[in-house]
Amino acid sequence: MINDTHNVNLRSWVESANDPETDFPIQNLPLCCFLMEHDGHAHPHYGVGIGDQVLDLSMLWEAEVFPTDADEEGTLADELADAMGYPHWMGVIDRPDLVGLLRREAQRFLLDGPAGGQQQRRLRQRALHPIAATRFLPPVSLLNYTDFYASIHHASTVGAMFRPDNPLLPNYKHVPIGYHGRASSVVVSGTPVKRPKGQQSPESEGGAPGFGPCKMLDYEMEVGCIIGRGNEIGEPVGIAEASERILGLVLVNDWSARDIQKWEYQPLGPFLAKNFGTTISPFVVTSEALAPFRCAGWSRANVDPQPLEYLRDERDQREGGFDITLEVWLQSAQMRENGMGPVRLSRGSFRDMYWSFAQMIAHHTSGGCNLQQGDLIASGTVSGVAADSRGCLLELTWDGMENGKAKPRKGIELPTGEKRVFLADGDAVVMRGWCEREGFRKIGFGECGGVVVG
Amino acid sequence: MINDTHNVNLRSWVESANDPETDFPIQNLPLCCFLMEHDGHAHPHYGVGIGDQVLDLSMLWEAEVFPTDADEEGTLADELADAMGYPHWMGVIDRPDLVGLLRREAQRFLLDGPAGGQQQRRLRQRALHPIAATRFLPPVSLLNYTDFYASIHHASTVGAMFRPDNPLLPNYKHVPIGYHGRASSVVVSGTPVKRPKGQQSPESEGGAPGFGPCKMLDYEMEVGCIIGRGNEIGEPVGIAEASERILGLVLVNDWSARDIQKWEYQPLGPFLAKNFGTTISPFVVTSEALAPFRCAGWSRANVDPQPLEYLRDERDQREGGFDITLEVWLQSAQMRENGMGPVRLSRGSFRDMYWSFAQMIAHHTSGGCNLQQGDLIASGTVSGVAADSRGCLLELTWDGMENGKAKPRKGIELPTGEKRVFLADGDAVVMRGWCEREGFRKIGFGECGGVVVG
Repeated sequence: MINDTHNVNLRSWVESANDPETDFPIQNLPLCCFLMEHDGHAHPHYGVGIGDQVLDLSMLWEAEVFPTDADEEGTLADELADAMGYPHWMGVIDRPDLVGLLRREAQRFLLDGPAGGQQQRRLRQRALHPIAATRFLPPVSLLNYTDFYASIHHASTVGAMFRPDNPLLPNYKHVPIGYHGRASSVVVSGTPVKRPKGQQSPESEGGAPGFGPCKMLDYEMEVGCIIGRGNEIGEPVGIAEASERILGLVLVNDWSARDIQKWEYQPLGPFLAKNFGTTISPFVVTSEALAPFRCAGWSRANVDPQPLEYLRDERDQREGGFDITLEVWLQSAQMRENGMGPVRLSRGSFRDMYWSFAQMIAHHTSGGCNLQQGDLIASGTVSGVAADSRGCLLELTWDGMENGKAKPRKGIELPTGEKRVFLADGDAVVMRGWCEREGFRKIGFGECGGVVVG
Repeated sequence: MINDTHNVNLRSWVESANDPETDFPIQNLPLCCFLMEHDGHAHPHYGVGIGDQVLDLSMLWEAEVFPTDADEEGTLADELADAMGYPHWMGVIDRPDLVGLLRREAQRFLLDGPAGGQQQRRLRQRALHPIAATRFLPPVSLLNYTDFYASIHHASTVGAMFRPDNPLLPNYKHVPIGYHGRASSVVVSGTPVKRPKGQQSPESEGGAPGFGPCKMLDYEMEVGCIIGRGNEIGEPVGIAEASERILGLVLVNDWSARDIQKWEYQPLGPFLAKNFGTTISPFVVTSEALAPFRCAGWSRANVDPQPLEYLRDERDQREGGFDITLEVWLQSAQMRENGMGPVRLSRGSFRDMYWSFAQMIAHHTSGGCNLQQGDLIASGTVSGVAADSRGCLLELTWDGMENGKAKPRKGIELPTGEKRVFLADGDAVVMRGWCEREGFRKIGFGECGGVVVG
C-alpha cells in the first residue's frame, strides 16, 4: 500500500539522507539492531538507517519522544511501548501496524525543519550514529533459515553443467524447491568468513577422498525475506495471506564450497558446503517501504504450466514480486593494498525469479511446517538470462560444454592482473541492491559484505 | 566414566524406581522440563525421571534442599545456583560438572531411607508428580536440528530400492552424510502429528503432479544427541573431544512423507517430507548415566576404508558407540477401541551404526559450522541386518525386486485384521529404548510417541 510516507518530496534534517544516491532516504527507514556501550557493557539497541547514519530508536524511546497514551494513537502506542521491551524487535515485528507506527514516528522525528529548542537539538545530535562506526547485530533473532532455488535461470545454468541434455529437473516448474539451511552460522555483514576445510572427491573412482581447504569457494547473491508473523504447526498459510507475513527483505550471501558440495550432496542435499557461514545485510527494508516497487510475481501465463492451486493467487501474480536491482562487487587484498576500489562482477534483477516469496511461504507451510517470527527465507541465487547477470562464480566463470565435456572455466581478470575462477583469501565480496521507479525516491539495502580469511 | 552413582545396589524410597523393569531407576535420573500451574500461570520446571514419577528439581531448589556455599562442594554449588536461573537447563547443560552435581544431589535426595522429620516427609510428597499426568516441554531450548544417515544397513536397503545394482553411494563410507532439519517443528512425545498435504509425482512423465494428503506416511526410529557445549564459528571440534560435547541422548521419531519426498528431493534433499513434525522423547538420558553402556564406535578395521584422520580416534573406536536396544510399537485406533495393546513392529540396536556421534560432531564442525547448546543431532533411521530390525515402514514392508521392478509391498497384519503398508490416521507409533549390561541396572529412555491425525 503506497501512502504518504513514500512522498518523494519529503526531506530530512539529516543532510546525507537527501543525497539522491543514498540507500536510506527518509522514505526508506530500514530496521537494524546494533551494539551501544553504556554502564560498562555493550547493549543491543534498535534503530533505522537514515542517510549514512543510524537513528537510535531505543534511545529516543527512553527520552519519551514517541507518542504515549495521551496521543491520538493511544492504544497502539501503548502496545508499541510493551512490544519495545523485547530484544531484537521480536515484540514488534509480527505486527505490521506497529512497524508502520514506528516508521511514521521515526519519519516525523527526522523530517526537515528547525529543532524545537535546545533539548531537541541535543537529542538530534545524540540519537545519530555513523553507520561506518556502528557494530551491527543481526536485525532479528533468527531461529530458522530456509534457502530456496527460485531462479529458473540459475537452476537451468547449473543443471546444464551436470545434465547438458536435460538441465531442468521435471519437478522445477511445479515445486518451489527449497532446503533447510543452518541458522546458527548466519552472520551480519562485515563478519569475516573463514574458508572451510572439507572432503573433496577422490581423484579416481573408488579412491580415497582428500581433506583440506576448499578449492572452489563461491558466493551466492540472494534476497532474503524476514518473517514477521509465523504460523502454528499444522496450520498452513494460504497464498492469499502469505505476503502479509513478510516483515521485509535483506540481502544474503549464501557462501558455498562447490568442491565440498559436489562430493557430499547425494542423496540428502548440501550440508557442510553451506553451513560455515551465511552473511545478511544489517538492515531489513520493510514491506511498507518496498510497496511502490512491487512487480508481477510470476508472469508466465500461457507459457509454462500454471502453478497448482495452493500456489496460485491473482494478486500475487500481479504484484508478488519486487523490482530490485542487485550487484556483486569484488575487491582482492592486492586491490585494497593498491588503493583500488572494488570491481563489479554482475548486475541482475530480482524481477527475474520464477517463484515469489508468497509462493515460497505458502509452499513451506503447505504440509504444516511452522514458520517463526524472525525466520529467514532466502530466494536462492538470483541469476538472469544475460551472462553478466549471473549471481555466483559457478555460473559466471562457466564456459559451456564441448564434445560432451565441460570446457575449462574462464578466469575473471581483476585490475591488478589477478585472475579469479573462485574466491581467494583476502577477497572482499560486497553485494548491493536498490529499487528505483519514476515518481519515487530510490531506496536501497545498504551493503552485504564479507572478507574471505584463510 | 563409571562411578558410584551407577552402583547396582542403590535403591530409592520411590517404590516404582526399584521395579527391575522401570526405565528410570535411581541410577538413571534423566533430565526433563515440564509445566506446573501456580500463581494462575503454567511455569516451566526442571526435573528428573524416577520410576513412574518426575522429581521436581525446581521446587526442591526453592526449598533449599540442594547444597549451598556452606557445603563441601561450595563453589560448584554456587555456580549451579546461578545456572539454575536460566530457562530449560540452558545454564547447566554446557557444564558436565554441574550436570554431575545435580545428578548426585538428586540421587542423594531419592536414596532409600526414612525421611528426616515431618518437613522432609512433606517435601518428598510434594516434589513428585506422576509422569502419566505431567505436561512435558522439550527438555532443552532446541535451536538447531541436524539429521544424519549413519546406519549403513538403512542406507543400503533404501539405496537398493532406487539403485538395485549400486545401493550404496561412493561417498557413504567416507562422509557421515547429514542434512539440516527443521528445528521449529520438533515436538515432544505425546503431541499429535497431523498428516501433511503435499505434492506427489505426476502419474505419467510430463504430467501435472497431484496435491493432497500424504499417502505414504512413515516413521523413522532414530536416536538423538543433545549438545551440551557448543563451539564458536570457524573453530572445529576435534574428534578426540567431540564426545564430551554430548549432554545426553533422546529417542527421535523423524516422521517422513515418502511420496512427497520422492517428488521433491532432487536436487537439494528432503524438505516438506520431513518438516511437518519430528517427535523427541521428553527425557534426556545423560552421558554420565549411559557411561556403563558404551560400546565400540566403529569396529570395521581391515574391512572397510579407514575414516579420514579428522574422523579417527582410538578412544572413539573403542567406546564411541552406545549399546541401546530400540523398539517400535504400533496401535491403531481400532486396536485402542477394542482394548488391545500395541504390537511391536521392530527391534533393532544402536550398536549397528556405521558412524558414531563423536564422528558426526567432528564432521559437522569440520568446516567451521558452530553447534549451539541444546542442538539436536539425530542419527538417521536405525536399522540392522535382520529384516525385523528395520527402523521404518519404507524398509519393513519392502519386498525386494523382481525382473528389475519393485515387488508389491508386504502389508503388516495387525491383531484386528487391519493391514499396514504405511501409517493410517489414528495410528499411534511408540518408540522405546533401553540399555542392559550384567552387573548394572537396566536404564531406559521412556516413551517417544505420537498419534497420526488426519
